[in-house]
Amino acid sequence: MRKVEICFSPELIHLHELSGKIVVVVDIFRATSTMVAALANGVTEIRTFASLEECKAMAARGFLIAGERNGLTAEGFELGNSPIAYLNGTYAGRKLAMTTTNGTLAISKSHGAAEILIGAFPNLSATIQYIQSKDQDVVIHCAGWKGRFNLEDSLYAGALAKSLESTHAAEEDGALAMKALYEKEGHDLKTFLSQASHAKRLQNHNIEADIDFCLTLDLYSLIGRLDASGVLKSI
Amino acid sequence: MRKVEICFSPELIHLHELSGKIVVVVDIFRATSTMVAALANGVTEIRTFASLEECKAMAARGFLIAGERNGLTAEGFELGNSPIAYLNGTYAGRKLAMTTTNGTLAISKSHGAAEILIGAFPNLSATIQYIQSKDQDVVIHCAGWKGRFNLEDSLYAGALAKSLESTHAAEEDGALAMKALYEKEGHDLKTFLSQASHAKRLQNHNIEADIDFCLTLDLYSLIGRLDASGVLKSI
Repeated sequence: MRKVEICFSPELIHLHELSGKIVVVVDIFRATSTMVAALANGVTEIRTFASLEECKAMAARGFLIAGERNGLTAEGFELGNSPIAYLNGTYAGRKLAMTTTNGTLAISKSHGAAEILIGAFPNLSATIQYIQSKDQDVVIHCAGWKGRFNLEDSLYAGALAKSLESTHAAEEDGALAMKALYEKEGHDLKTFLSQASHAKRLQNHNIEADIDFCLTLDLYSLIGRLDASGVLKSI
Repeated sequence: MRKVEICFSPELIHLHELSGKIVVVVDIFRATSTMVAALANGVTEIRTFASLEECKAMAARGFLIAGERNGLTAEGFELGNSPIAYLNGTYAGRKLAMTTTNGTLAISKSHGAAEILIGAFPNLSATIQYIQSKDQDVVIHCAGWKGRFNLEDSLYAGALAKSLESTHAAEEDGALAMKALYEKEGHDLKTFLSQASHAKRLQNHNIEADIDFCLTLDLYSLIGRLDASGVLKSI
C-alpha cells in the first residue's frame, strides 16, 4: 500500500522526504483555488513568483499579473487572489504570473518531488483519480498562514487522505489526525471554517463569494500540475 | 475572555507570541509525563538539558541523571525516559537532571513566557484549575517528534483547549482543530493513538506500561512549573 502524509507548514517541509513522491500543494484561501479556477477558465499557463517585483516584471512579456499580500491586491497589479475574477473565461488564452502571501512559497519549497500538483476543493475528485493512477506516495503540503497551521488547508489535506484510503495508508500522525477531523467536520466545512482565523480575515474583506467558491467540490475535472520547468498547466 | 492557541512544533514556536502568556509544554510520550511522575513521587526538582554531556555532568553534583535519545536510555545514564521508574517513591528526595529527544528542547524554546508549565494527562485537571485561576492567555507548546507534528501531544492540547472552553476561547486554527479532534477521539485515546507513529515506536520497545501510564487521567493534583531560574518544581 502506498502512503500519504501531511506537512502543515512550509517551515516544516524540510522534515519530509519528497524525493520520488507526489507533492500536493494546497492554499485553499485562496492561491491554489484561484490557480485551478484560472486553468479551468482558459488561462494557458501559470508561473509563480516569490517577490512582487519579479512577478510584476512579467507584464512586459505579455503575462497577466496577479499579486496578493495579506489578503489584498498588491499595488500595481491587475489582479489579486480572487478565483471569481477568472470565471466565464474572462482571461482565456492568457498566460498568468502570480505571487501570493503563502501559496507561492509552498510551491517553491516543494522542489525535489517526483511531481507537484496544486490542490483545491473544486477539482478534488479529479486530483484523487490522478494520484490513484500513479504508484507514488503522497505528501500534502499545506501553505498555512505565514508559517502557521491553518484550518482550511489542513481540512483539504484530511479530505484528500480520507479519499485516498483505499490506496494510500494514513499512518503518519498528521494524516491520521486530519483524516479523523475531516470525518467529523467534513459534512459542513463552511460552518466549521467560519470560526477559523483566515475565514474571518476574508470575511473582513467582503469576499464571501470567494469563500463559497473555494469550498465547492468538483466543479472541474482538470488536474493542476507543474511541468519540468516549474510552469503550472492543466492536464 | 482569555485565549488558547496551539503550537505543533518547537520549529514553529517563534511564530507565536509568548510574552505575558502561560506556556504549557507537552511531550506525552514521555518526557513531560515522566517529569510529572517524578515530582509526584518525591523528586524535589528537575533541571533539563539539551545535551547528554551537560546532563551527565550533573551526577557529580549529586543529581540523579536521566538521558533518552530515540526512545532508548542513553549510554552511561542511570535512567531513561520511563515514568514507571519513579513510582513508589523510589527516588524520593533526589534532584533530577534530564535530557530527552524532544521535550527538553521544547522547554528551552519556551523562554519569554510569563509562566512555563509541564503538561501531562496524569495531572490534566490540576493544570486546568491552575490556569483558570490566572488571568493569562495560554499557548500549548507541543514537543512533537523531531520537529514534526505528533498525535499524542496534539490530542493533549485538544483536551486542554476543550477543558478550558468556559474561560479561554479556542479561536486560533490549531486550537479549533484539536478541540474538535479531541471531541471525536477523546473517549478512547489509547485505541486512536495505537495507530500513531510514536506509539508504534514505543510498542517496539516493549513499554506498553509506559503508554498506559501516560494516558491515565488525573492521578495527581500537582502542577509542574518552572521557577524563575528554569528549575522545574511542583506547586
